[in-house]
Amino acid sequence: MTIRRRTILTGGALAGGGVAVGALGALAASGAPKPGAGAGAAPDTGSAVVAFHGARQAGIATEPPAHASFVAFTLPGGTDRRALGRMMRLLTDDARRLTQGVPALGDTDAQLAVLPARLTVTFGFGPGLYSAAKVASPVKDLPGFTIDRLEKRWSGGDLLIQICADDALTVAHAQRMLIKDARPFGAVRWVQTGFRRSPGVQQAGFTQRNLLGQLDGTANPAGGALDTAVWAPDGSTTLVVRRIRTEIEKWDLLSVTDKENAVGRRMDSGAPFTGVNERDEPDFAALDAGGLPVMPDYAHVTRAHVTDPALKILRRPYNYDGAPNAAGHPDSGLIFASYQASIERQYLPLQQRLAERDLLNEWITPIGSAVFAVPAGCAEDGWIGAEVLG
Amino acid sequence: MTIRRRTILTGGALAGGGVAVGALGALAASGAPKPGAGAGAAPDTGSAVVAFHGARQAGIATEPPAHASFVAFTLPGGTDRRALGRMMRLLTDDARRLTQGVPALGDTDAQLAVLPARLTVTFGFGPGLYSAAKVASPVKDLPGFTIDRLEKRWSGGDLLIQICADDALTVAHAQRMLIKDARPFGAVRWVQTGFRRSPGVQQAGFTQRNLLGQLDGTANPAGGALDTAVWAPDGSTTLVVRRIRTEIEKWDLLSVTDKENAVGRRMDSGAPFTGVNERDEPDFAALDAGGLPVMPDYAHVTRAHVTDPALKILRRPYNYDGAPNAAGHPDSGLIFASYQASIERQYLPLQQRLAERDLLNEWITPIGSAVFAVPAGCAEDGWIGAEVLG
Repeated sequence: MTIRRRTILTGGALAGGGVAVGALGALAASGAPKPGAGAGAAPDTGSAVVAFHGARQAGIATEPPAHASFVAFTLPGGTDRRALGRMMRLLTDDARRLTQGVPALGDTDAQLAVLPARLTVTFGFGPGLYSAAKVASPVKDLPGFTIDRLEKRWSGGDLLIQICADDALTVAHAQRMLIKDARPFGAVRWVQTGFRRSPGVQQAGFTQRNLLGQLDGTANPAGGALDTAVWAPDGSTTLVVRRIRTEIEKWDLLSVTDKENAVGRRMDSGAPFTGVNERDEPDFAALDAGGLPVMPDYAHVTRAHVTDPALKILRRPYNYDGAPNAAGHPDSGLIFASYQASIERQYLPLQQRLAERDLLNEWITPIGSAVFAVPAGCAEDGWIGAEVLG
Repeated sequence: MTIRRRTILTGGALAGGGVAVGALGALAASGAPKPGAGAGAAPDTGSAVVAFHGARQAGIATEPPAHASFVAFTLPGGTDRRALGRMMRLLTDDARRLTQGVPALGDTDAQLAVLPARLTVTFGFGPGLYSAAKVASPVKDLPGFTIDRLEKRWSGGDLLIQICADDALTVAHAQRMLIKDARPFGAVRWVQTGFRRSPGVQQAGFTQRNLLGQLDGTANPAGGALDTAVWAPDGSTTLVVRRIRTEIEKWDLLSVTDKENAVGRRMDSGAPFTGVNERDEPDFAALDAGGLPVMPDYAHVTRAHVTDPALKILRRPYNYDGAPNAAGHPDSGLIFASYQASIERQYLPLQQRLAERDLLNEWITPIGSAVFAVPAGCAEDGWIGAEVLG
């Protein structure tokens, strides 16, 4: 049962309003539904706000909301550091307003901006932006992997705007406002729109399933490990965006057992073969009666496992589902987005292990790839990227 | 504040749990957050279920959930009534399972089916299906309107499956299951995916805004009028699906006053020029100081006004937002879906008035059009379309 604070506080159509308010007060005091613990627990899903200003950009360590749009731009030749500075001042101003439920300057559809629903706007700089600014780039394009079937229309990019919120209308409107202000400076290169569970559909903090039915994100760093794994001391980080098509027609032909063998986890509980619960650490030394490892060497979990918490990556994936073709075959998969302090130290070795021998590769194909440096956050009188472009 | 029944009933981390349960009991008894009144009021957004069986199909009179997919199929030549009967028995079985949170037969990703989130699956039959079945069609294609710029890729269809739920993952999985079973019988002709506000973002029952910022659906029939306007005595109805592109770049150039003149309502409140609240009936006889009608003759509200409640149509629209082009111009608009007992008596005269002289036509363009008869619902041992194909 959902009860909105607004309804309660104004009395609403309540007969026993006083009692309810009292009871809710007790609830709040007991901390049962923790504010900020996730969408379902937010005081009001529509008016919930994520702070924009800070040492680190928002939209990274926060629990991913239901909808996301990743918008990449190509800068034209001749773009210089001054133009980039003007662009980022403008876009920072839009982002600080929109994320707080305030319309962007000049918005004639201002009513579409008033329900931010945990809107975050996060900026990433591709290698090309640094070239234009004549500054050494902290990131470089990934090497090719044998599993890649990359398409230009989903790859690369000089500027990335990641727009996330618990509401698709909010994302669409914010995207329109941001693109309007970015397009004088660059062309839209690609847009990838994705989704996770809607607010309240699943309990906050629980791992979500992707379109293959797998629990996705179990091994994410948490707590203090997250800090070390994701953030550089200056508040910056890096982002890898990969568009991974799922060969879902082939996947559908597998039995549940075959699927579990490819992943190394039970499909229902998400537990590794050597455990009973989702969060149990896999035991890679365990052997079966025949003397073979219980966790198969080729399984996704085995290949993706990282022991050192500081070397983990923070996966923040979204599902995509395009239009099926006339034969009814889906165009769906994952917008894989990972944040890590260092692509070279954290992402690359992991991806190399997966590319070499992950059985799951039979049913997934990377078709897009891009890397971005994510500059530090900014203060109220600052702008994102000032330390690079200022 | 969101409180999940599951948390409450199991005690959760509650200190004063007993009090809260008592208060919630009182709330439920007072009927304040009405179950079924909307997403935010559902006991649990993920497990909320809409009944599938009944005299009328679901997904029509129920408040539209956050996500929808409209999937149209083309039947190959030679399709006969027996094949159609087999198809509808199979699809009915899928729909009755999926809508209740039960996996479709043979689903190897069964975990994706367990959170229906108010899933509804509604079937429509196009004129071509009736031809194939050698039965007279209750619907025929719309005449062309001067404003139309119809594209084949968004128009027509022999079978329609409308899939709606409060969760995009649920919609995507249900769509995959239904297409898998439908595709042996026909080719996917088009898929239109749309969205409204996420559960809990806006209070249930309140009119939502579309991507132009307008409140959309204010004049929908309600209560007893809805019954007469939508349903034939046998439980059937009809559906018009129009894909309406918004010329949002031109719309953005208008002042708020110009936008209001095109619509005939205030942008903030949605009130007609002659009223103060959204639901106030417009007074078309009112004159201004200069002797001109306060409600302009060319305004959308004036052209769309229907006095007889029995002649109103039930609009159940969804927004769409495709990928913008390289220049940053959006591909967005409305999947207009209206239900009415008779397209000829209700939809056509209204659409004719709009096509003739609706100022809003400057900023909207119909690019897709399709009509479907929506057969009655079915009982537990029945299937949708039995009275046509049985």
